Amino acid sequence: MGIVLGANSYGKAESRVVRIVRDTDRHQIRDLNVSTALRGDFVDVHTRGDNRQVLPTDTQRNTAFAWAKKHGVDSPEDYALALGRRLLEATPAATGVTVDVEEYAWDRLGDHAFVRRGTEVRTVRVDLDEAGAVVRSGLTDLVLLKSTDSEFRGFLHDDYTTLEDADDRVLATSLTASWTGETGETGETGGWDASYDAVRALLLDAFAAHHSHSLQETLYAMGRAVLEERAALTEIAFTAPNRHHHLADLAPFGIENAGEVFVAADRPYGLIQVTVTRDDG
Amino acid sequence: MGIVLGANSYGKAESRVVRIVRDTDRHQIRDLNVSTALRGDFVDVHTRGDNRQVLPTDTQRNTAFAWAKKHGVDSPEDYALALGRRLLEATPAATGVTVDVEEYAWDRLGDHAFVRRGTEVRTVRVDLDEAGAVVRSGLTDLVLLKSTDSEFRGFLHDDYTTLEDADDRVLATSLTASWTGETGETGETGGWDASYDAVRALLLDAFAAHHSHSLQETLYAMGRAVLEERAALTEIAFTAPNRHHHLADLAPFGIENAGEVFVAADRPYGLIQVTVTRDDG
Amino acid sequence: MGIVLGANSYGKAESRVVRIVRDTDRHQIRDLNVSTALRGDFVDVHTRGDNRQVLPTDTQRNTAFAWAKKHGVDSPEDYALALGRRLLEATPAATGVTVDVEEYAWDRLGDHAFVRRGTEVRTVRVDLDEAGAVVRSGLTDLVLLKSTDSEFRGFLHDDYTTLEDADDRVLATSLTASWTGETGETGETGGWDASYDAVRALLLDAFAAHHSHSLQETLYAMGRAVLEERAALTEIAFTAPNRHHHLADLAPFGIENAGEVFVAADRPYGLIQVTVTRDDG
Amino acid sequence: MGIVLGANSYGKAESRVVRIVRDTDRHQIRDLNVSTALRGDFVDVHTRGDNRQVLPTDTQRNTAFAWAKKHGVDSPEDYALALGRRLLEATPAATGVTVDVEEYAWDRLGDHAFVRRGTEVRTVRVDLDEAGAVVRSGLTDLVLLKSTDSEFRGFLHDDYTTLEDADDRVLATSLTASWTGETGETGETGGWDASYDAVRALLLDAFAAHHSHSLQETLYAMGRAVLEERAALTEIAFTAPNRHHHLADLAPFGIENAGEVFVAADRPYGLIQVTVTRDDG
Repeated sequence: MGIVLGANSYGKAESRVVRIVRDTDRHQIRDLNVSTALRGDFVDVHTRGDNRQVLPTDTQRNTAFAWAKKHGVDSPEDYALALGRRLLEATPAATGVTVDVEEYAWDRLGDHAFVRRGTEVRTVRVDLDEAGAVVRSGLTDLVLLKSTDSEFRGFLHDDYTTLEDADDRVLATSLTASWTGETGETGETGGWDASYDAVRALLLDAFAAHHSHSLQETLYAMGRAVLEERAALTEIAFTAPNRHHHLADLAPFGIENAGEVFVAADRPYGLIQVTVTRDDG
Repeated sequence: MGIVLGANSYGKAESRVVRIVRDTDRHQIRDLNVSTALRGDFVDVHTRGDNRQVLPTDTQRNTAFAWAKKHGVDSPEDYALALGRRLLEATPAATGVTVDVEEYAWDRLGDHAFVRRGTEVRTVRVDLDEAGAVVRSGLTDLVLLKSTDSEFRGFLHDDYTTLEDADDRVLATSLTASWTGETGETGETGGWDASYDAVRALLLDAFAAHHSHSLQETLYAMGRAVLEERAALTEIAFTAPNRHHHLADLAPFGIENAGEVFVAADRPYGLIQVTVTRDDG
Repeated sequence: MGIVLGANSYGKAESRVVRIVRDTDRHQIRDLNVSTALRGDFVDVHTRGDNRQVLPTDTQRNTAFAWAKKHGVDSPEDYALALGRRLLEATPAATGVTVDVEEYAWDRLGDHAFVRRGTEVRTVRVDLDEAGAVVRSGLTDLVLLKSTDSEFRGFLHDDYTTLEDADDRVLATSLTASWTGETGETGETGGWDASYDAVRALLLDAFAAHHSHSLQETLYAMGRAVLEERAALTEIAFTAPNRHHHLADLAPFGIENAGEVFVAADRPYGLIQVTVTRDDG
Repeated sequence: MGIVLGANSYGKAESRVVRIVRDTDRHQIRDLNVSTALRGDFVDVHTRGDNRQVLPTDTQRNTAFAWAKKHGVDSPEDYALALGRRLLEATPAATGVTVDVEEYAWDRLGDHAFVRRGTEVRTVRVDLDEAGAVVRSGLTDLVLLKSTDSEFRGFLHDDYTTLEDADDRVLATSLTASWTGETGETGETGGWDASYDAVRALLLDAFAAHHSHSLQETLYAMGRAVLEERAALTEIAFTAPNRHHHLADLAPFGIENAGEVFVAADRPYGLIQVTVTRDDG
């Protein structure tokens, strides 16, 4: 039984591409972290040290910067699709490419001064091959907290269960979400940027409005709210740490603590993964 | 020549205190990271293993949580002062205490739902001893960028200088600033929270308005603008990495890059420290 | 077309379990970071807020600590298997469980004093369901560097290629590797700990001995070396950033730099993923 | 009362300088992170945008790389001293310079292959001005743990004290230490590298041998041990988080836990700062 090459990919990770649009005095900025990875028939590079089919990762980086000007960055999705197509075209041995883009948001201070906004990062993953393109838009590190309207009760008990029912707890998470199905056409859904803004707003509204019996239920409700409003979306997936806030025990000091002082814990944390999708039936 | 104990301190670092005010249905949140350190006559604990003068760091943590309820958190400054006074009072051997508080800002999504705001963190350092209290308010990780109105020219050259004059460059930093002189009285300066908001706004305005010949000059102008407007402040200090944005070299590809595509660099970075103060003369 | 629950899991991440074996005066330590995730029929928790099937993540944490004593930690693999079995048994609605364990290594300073060793972390992932158990052992953050015996030449060129052939370069990476096929039986392969030590040594030897035409080729050679020596292994997978070390340009200063001074770059970096497997044919 | 410039400095932080010595087939590596900061009469740059006295931070970086070849890196101390002298010489307006160097250690795998060793980082700070040079050598992130021989009892109690006496606890820290007084002359103390190795060994031995009544006492004992053996040293300073390991509460499950299973906590942590010095009397 021989030893052979299995799945493989290679690329350039985390090119920090900053694109300033300065066509008018009122500059615009798109601040990106770009990673590309090619896959395909690269046996010889691995087994024979023959690099003839390898477009260097240095060239992938050059292309990421060149495309920020040549194609532009109307949205991270548009840019990722264009960059992916170019890399496939330039690399005959490649059968597929994955382009990941993170975008950091800035608020405007003036015509050409900006301040970083929020902790969250917009994300895009484009997968391209001969079958076509799949675009997953999303966000990560969106930090949310509810100071009430959250309970966790009636769960399964075994010999190692010490947790007590909570009628009123703090619910907090650092949300990662991604969704697919948008086309980016402006007629239908307002284009990629409008779609992102709409999904983000729906997530915030649903989180704020939901009376939670568990983080699982809240995430499902958030996903359902998005799919109900955005007809083009076929699926939305969440990864959400449950950032525990333990009620501080002030009883030994004769101080009542009616849900007012909490210990924000680091580790361990609950970790919830939920996908909400459309029924094929 | 004997061996003796020199400077020393001990305390509890990074207690994550979250205070929810729920007196009405419209909750308020103050999200803090609290560190305390006591100093004084603690020779015996070090040299003889005698802990009788040591208020445990565990007790310091308990007090940080208890004081969030007992005293409350009208502002991080008020809270830090009260906590520091308590720890000094509880520890006869201590001659001084330093309390550091970081506050994370949240935007409101509803009566009791919140989303983390910005990347910046509000900071307070209180130093208390028998001579009185010194309060330094500040902020850190305030990320700023100018896409033009920044040059760097006419600098000193030696045999190892390869940098060329820049007529128009991106200027970006992650600002740390701290200032002293406020009293926190509401009559004078609007209280600690109002003062913080005012100083932050002055910093942003001055950054946006300044035509920069160097990050040093911009920081000085920002400090000057703050001191001119806030009569109570006696001094403001900045630590600011110069987060270099190199113009991407697209010439090999026949693409003009007139200040439109930049490489955001990680390391190394310039590091500028500037204090702006009032003349005693 | 309805909206339904898709793939989902939940668990407790990063329980920091430290197990001291103190049966003799010569203590032993196993320092673990444990994450568990259950999957199965959890529709009602998501869609109806009904938690009756949910073994709390808090209980999963309790079990992780209890099992460190009740079952012990002969190896992270043994422990992960036992913990996974317990969680499946305790949760009727679960059809599968994933247990991830990271282990931090310590060197001995004395009978009961230790110093942390290395930057690398030993990893185990166990996937358990009714079909059986799959164990992936591995490591991450093993930082390696060759100061010569590495070239990269003869690669594909397109219009955006500026990289030049390198006859002699620094090759550095922070290796993540994982493999499967070991049974942990002591007769065959020496047990989990012996197997880990053997694979790690083979990886280091192969890295040191290989004349590299690319990081891809070096990784393939390392995987091949492991599979050739360890008959039980069926597959090994690598993720390896190419931590670029650029030759510092000292020519403007009249200083020759014959591969002696390098700039260690942060981002971007090449990212190589390679799997080496056995041929089924 | 006017507004004026106060204390200030500027420099280049975190130049990642890797020096390979390849005079023989058996290569040597020194892997450094270098930061430099100049201070002096730089009023005009801050207040008038006049950069004529400013040696660019870019030049400071160039010099850090050039000096790695031109002067070499016999030890980080030697290199830092030479680099500091050069920067002062090149900058007439500067009255002082601080050079910080971190060194990452590598173990040898072969003539020219290496693997990163340990988590700890060797540190050097050189301060140079017309009065002369002060060299502080040190280390950071040296992670230590004792599984017994550590107690904490008899401490001060107040109304907020809930901690109970501990007869036998885990003591763990991530040590930062720095010392001064060595001259680097080989005759006296074996040179900088020998001195570093000796101090590090003394710290490990003292930690392992000490029966601890508090982390403060252990640090003092470690400092004392170093000063007793190394006559040239005048002072050693420690910063040490007390990385709490709480005994896991297994009693609810009917499992005895006689110091065998611990929860390694993240935050908060005790933070101890101790200086041990020679008596001037």
